Amino acid sequence: MDQSELEIELPELLVIHPPPVFIIHHQQFSQKFKLLKAYESPLSTDLFLQTHAQSTKAVICYGKSPITSNILRLLPSLQLVVTASTGFNHIDLPDCRRRGIAVVNTGDVFSEDTADTAVGLLIDVLRRISAGDRFVRSGNWPTKLQYSLGSQLGGKHVGIVGLGNIGLKVATRLEAFGCKISYNSRQKKQVPYNFYQNVSELASNCNILIICCTLTVETRHMIDKDVLKAFGKDGILINIARGPIVDEKELVKFLVEGEIAGAGLDVFENEPKVPQELYSMDNVVLTPHRAAFTEEAFSSAFQIVLANLEAFFSNKPLISPVVDVNIEKL
Amino acid sequence: MDQSELEIELPELLVIHPPPVFIIHHQQFSQKFKLLKAYESPLSTDLFLQTHAQSTKAVICYGKSPITSNILRLLPSLQLVVTASTGFNHIDLPDCRRRGIAVVNTGDVFSEDTADTAVGLLIDVLRRISAGDRFVRSGNWPTKLQYSLGSQLGGKHVGIVGLGNIGLKVATRLEAFGCKISYNSRQKKQVPYNFYQNVSELASNCNILIICCTLTVETRHMIDKDVLKAFGKDGILINIARGPIVDEKELVKFLVEGEIAGAGLDVFENEPKVPQELYSMDNVVLTPHRAAFTEEAFSSAFQIVLANLEAFFSNKPLISPVVDVNIEKL
Repeated sequence: MDQSELEIELPELLVIHPPPVFIIHHQQFSQKFKLLKAYESPLSTDLFLQTHAQSTKAVICYGKSPITSNILRLLPSLQLVVTASTGFNHIDLPDCRRRGIAVVNTGDVFSEDTADTAVGLLIDVLRRISAGDRFVRSGNWPTKLQYSLGSQLGGKHVGIVGLGNIGLKVATRLEAFGCKISYNSRQKKQVPYNFYQNVSELASNCNILIICCTLTVETRHMIDKDVLKAFGKDGILINIARGPIVDEKELVKFLVEGEIAGAGLDVFENEPKVPQELYSMDNVVLTPHRAAFTEEAFSSAFQIVLANLEAFFSNKPLISPVVDVNIEKL
Repeated sequence: MDQSELEIELPELLVIHPPPVFIIHHQQFSQKFKLLKAYESPLSTDLFLQTHAQSTKAVICYGKSPITSNILRLLPSLQLVVTASTGFNHIDLPDCRRRGIAVVNTGDVFSEDTADTAVGLLIDVLRRISAGDRFVRSGNWPTKLQYSLGSQLGGKHVGIVGLGNIGLKVATRLEAFGCKISYNSRQKKQVPYNFYQNVSELASNCNILIICCTLTVETRHMIDKDVLKAFGKDGILINIARGPIVDEKELVKFLVEGEIAGAGLDVFENEPKVPQELYSMDNVVLTPHRAAFTEEAFSSAFQIVLANLEAFFSNKPLISPVVDVNIEKL
């Protein structure tokens, strides 16, 4: 049996654009699956999909590689969409349901790390850690002995925008630091925190806002001029969710004019572009959309993706279905 | 009554070298006390103290302005030493006790903030926050999309060196992040954490070491070559205590050679000098000895210093005595 015959026996997995989890664990994927890599093909994506239309039963995707109704239309044999992410709003779920296509995600593997980054960014902004690091590395410490004071985390009133998996984990962490927690969410939850139906009202009652909600049509530019105004001069904004939830142009304006106190931003409206006005500010901390990215979380995500694919190809129940289908149909 | 008569009525407070709390709240101090400022005098310190020897009943000090037996000898009327710090190992306590001189500190006002900084430095090193901030500010994000992964905090085994006020606060914070806590201390304590009598043994069993102990003859260079070797390639060291607890030369060597994974350092052996080898490293975070420094903590410290001084000068019980004396003797 030569190499090509061996490959034929591996189940096919379509990769339109490679997710980070796929890039990092590429070798393991290539050992388990016959990879149909649209991104390496000289064909256009549409033509590549048409070429593999009849055989493609499973596709792997992520936020930057959406599964639209157009893609679904080009893949009549598709039975499984695997997203290498927790979020799945880049997948046309109604179309999947209608067609009986199962959808699986990576479950909750990224939320602990994302919550950790939120707390890390917050302490960094309050206690001026990155700014202090810059100060030390500039060699200025021996000559400029005075370095401005930070602000205390304990006792601060923290408003969490979106109390889902990540928001709840941020809340429990910050309770251990002596913070008072409030939140805004679509609905009031069974939690011991103050609920604010209105995000402006939350902002005006808090020292710190941490954006933890998903990006939807409703949350796009939810943190706008009015919310920032209500937040006020002492407010510190942390965003580890999605850039467009904040009206970035207004945020930059408020920071430049000192109308809010600082920001810790892992996400931006036009990534990887970051507003240049922020580059020279000591009261902001900027990270390149890595709140969820640790080796351990990627390894867990890989295990879940693999377990779902193996379950699918051996007609067993899926591990983390977002849209499940009658397994007998597969 | 002219200004000079008013000043005579204020109680005298000797300031050999001004503590940060004193600098920040200078105006309030000058309204309440007749300040004897040795540091502004053209006289040598010894001569200045001799000049005010008979009248000086109270002195304010801090770590960088020690109260040695020599200073005590020059101040025969001294009855109160106020240190604007939590630590008091810069004061000759046996001499104070012998002489019946009361000693007060600022209590525990700085330990919460110090613990917060320890956690902030740790998340920063693990999740590469300052390095990420540098990466974004350098403008490299749009061209170098790949940015190396961080390491997860949850599940890490953290060893706390010195489980006093600060160490305990670091422990409770890190429990909220899902860390496993062990510690080394002079004595085993009534806590639900693993005790290691030997710091090398603690290091070899932990992924992270956080130095929280006081600097004494015994703890000087406690983190030496052997401990770092036991710690190993994956180890991350956080120091928010005192620089000389770590053999800095060895630490730099281990970092340069990749024999430990990273470090978050707020303190150094020869502050404000920082080893230049660290300046170019992305796996270290360097802050200018500010772990305890927030506006709120300084304000609390000022209140305690003032309350102690006011109690002393009105023959009332001291608020936060380290060495108390029979108040009737004053």
